[in-house]
Amino acid sequence: MTNSAKPLTIWPITGIGEIEPGDDVAGEILRGVEELGLELQNADIVVVTHKIVSKAEGQIRSIPDEATYRALVEGEAVNIVRRRGDLVIAQTKHGFICANAAVDRSNIADGFALLLPDDPDRSAHRIRVLLERAAGVTIGVVMTDTFGRPWRRGLTDIAIGMSGLPSLVDYRGTLDSHGNTLAVTEVAAVDEIASAADLVMGKSEGIPAALVRGLELSGTGRVSDLIRPPGEDLFR
Amino acid sequence: MTNSAKPLTIWPITGIGEIEPGDDVAGEILRGVEELGLELQNADIVVVTHKIVSKAEGQIRSIPDEATYRALVEGEAVNIVRRRGDLVIAQTKHGFICANAAVDRSNIADGFALLLPDDPDRSAHRIRVLLERAAGVTIGVVMTDTFGRPWRRGLTDIAIGMSGLPSLVDYRGTLDSHGNTLAVTEVAAVDEIASAADLVMGKSEGIPAALVRGLELSGTGRVSDLIRPPGEDLFR
Repeated sequence: MTNSAKPLTIWPITGIGEIEPGDDVAGEILRGVEELGLELQNADIVVVTHKIVSKAEGQIRSIPDEATYRALVEGEAVNIVRRRGDLVIAQTKHGFICANAAVDRSNIADGFALLLPDDPDRSAHRIRVLLERAAGVTIGVVMTDTFGRPWRRGLTDIAIGMSGLPSLVDYRGTLDSHGNTLAVTEVAAVDEIASAADLVMGKSEGIPAALVRGLELSGTGRVSDLIRPPGEDLFR
Repeated sequence: MTNSAKPLTIWPITGIGEIEPGDDVAGEILRGVEELGLELQNADIVVVTHKIVSKAEGQIRSIPDEATYRALVEGEAVNIVRRRGDLVIAQTKHGFICANAAVDRSNIADGFALLLPDDPDRSAHRIRVLLERAAGVTIGVVMTDTFGRPWRRGLTDIAIGMSGLPSLVDYRGTLDSHGNTLAVTEVAAVDEIASAADLVMGKSEGIPAALVRGLELSGTGRVSDLIRPPGEDLFR
């Protein structure tokens, strides 16, 4: 058994104010970490909801009426997977399949909607580089959004952008506790990190980031690694 | 802002030995928590993989050959959702939709398979009652399994049984940071707890349980609350 009993610890990063286009998200996160009385350490993972990244990147659209919103959803969709009444399950240009092509009217002023960052992996990488330079450490960054699931009620947070950690943790070829070689066990650890962080961020408290400490993951990946190719997918 | 900056902490519960039919899972968990130098506290959440619960409950079947395994999968399936080659996505009697109707050949001796507990919510409740009586505290228990997802590569852990905490945390009617009433934001917190715990449990290390401390959730629910009714589901 190689895993010791070290705990995983997740802090909500409070005190990040309202973000405007052009604001420095990495700087806000650093300030929030300092206000917690903490310093970034090697192997820390910073989780940030896309909402503040989208705002900083100006991914804000005016939606004066419902028709404008509907048109925006259709415009963001590269493929409609299902449609029932007003509910549209669509694939975004990034490959994500979710409600309303991820066009988001919550946590933004009335009459406006947020789009995802143009390239969430790149945005996560940029935040990581800024944090690493400022703090002199090597960390991971995960950007999240809140998606529904087929078959299962309730929303969970998943990763939509990442940098500095693996997307899939591959247990193939390792042995399980019976000495069997595990056939296919690729864990989407970065999605589990996103969900774990959401537990401390909540939805209505204005906590857009979290600090995860205690995971030892090696390797690098991109969220685009997590998109199941259409040919492998039974549910499109 | 009502959320303080209290961290969430998750410990892997190591030192739980091989479980045999009839074994006392709650007793093993308590012993593991003590070995960590910890004591259960009010509002703690104990997360346990179904594998050791299924073994303790004797949910083990002999599969001398592939045909027996295939027949077992078909027998556990109440509804086949998709089929491609050897891959079967099926609904179990519990309502879960997953690969091979959740019949599991990993982490058990060659020639055997594990089924899910007959009633995972009841099993979780039983473990909770035993832990609460032994430790004199009020806690939550989550039982997990590892499922794939449509559209997205990699596996994540989700809740298949629970007791003593809410299944869906309902933010409807609360205000977001802009004072908008959040329309529909029901978070499947118990699935996020399952995923968070998996980060410390791993797949091949023989760590079948975790202790989650620092969440303040009120309410009670069952995992069956999380099953999306077929009439609401666009992907069956």
